[in-house]
Amino acid sequence: MTQYLHTMIRVSSLEDTIEFFKVLGLHEFRRRPDEKGRYTNVFLAAPGQEDAAVELTYNWDPEPYTGGRNFGHLAYAVENIYDTCKAFMAHGVTINRPPRDGRMAFVRTPDGISIEILQAGDALPPAEPWTSMSNTGAW
Amino acid sequence: MTQYLHTMIRVSSLEDTIEFFKVLGLHEFRRRPDEKGRYTNVFLAAPGQEDAAVELTYNWDPEPYTGGRNFGHLAYAVENIYDTCKAFMAHGVTINRPPRDGRMAFVRTPDGISIEILQAGDALPPAEPWTSMSNTGAW
Repeated sequence: MTQYLHTMIRVSSLEDTIEFFKVLGLHEFRRRPDEKGRYTNVFLAAPGQEDAAVELTYNWDPEPYTGGRNFGHLAYAVENIYDTCKAFMAHGVTINRPPRDGRMAFVRTPDGISIEILQAGDALPPAEPWTSMSNTGAW
Repeated sequence: MTQYLHTMIRVSSLEDTIEFFKVLGLHEFRRRPDEKGRYTNVFLAAPGQEDAAVELTYNWDPEPYTGGRNFGHLAYAVENIYDTCKAFMAHGVTINRPPRDGRMAFVRTPDGISIEILQAGDALPPAEPWTSMSNTGAW
């Protein structure tokens, strides 16, 4: 039986990326430095969901990490989309697509990976400052 | 509580991409055409794992889908890595990184999304034709 394990993304800073995903509610549950391959893998997941992880690959010899159009985004449901977006803003993260509808928002990781944030269950009632907030950039 | 939902990729052909993922053992469980947005979303998952899906986005107005380095791959465990790679070859898919070690292989979707295939449980004993098969391209 086939089983999904993880999505791997390359990161230019483990610290910055782990901090970003912590705001979203993910935690680190495995770390493996590879001296020979000169990289470190860190696995992050939502609580209890370690079988559907994000694998971060940090190459010790840095390279620029540009994006492509074939990959879209990673999507997560959160308990309160306004609280999550507020927490991202407090960390200096731009809300590319604010949750004007109380249901959906988009942000980007420090290396430009698009993250879709969805309100778990029903949409929240529209509320400021989100209702008046414009889109920024692409996602 | 935060929950991972899906990874979204953009595809230039729904049929070709669904066929590709079928070889891997995934099935379609939801489809939503959006007349206004001019796109169709299709959700695929491994059996019983619909809470960790791949979302395909097919834009009705096509665009070229190039890759970027910030996204790495999607990883799946399979029951028999040799059978899966044989099935991919029968579908004309290049095994970019053959399972010479009986444990790990890489292929690419029709739009160049890298897929890591891992043998569930212990590695299989090394076997031909894989042992003698060279890498092809990048993954």
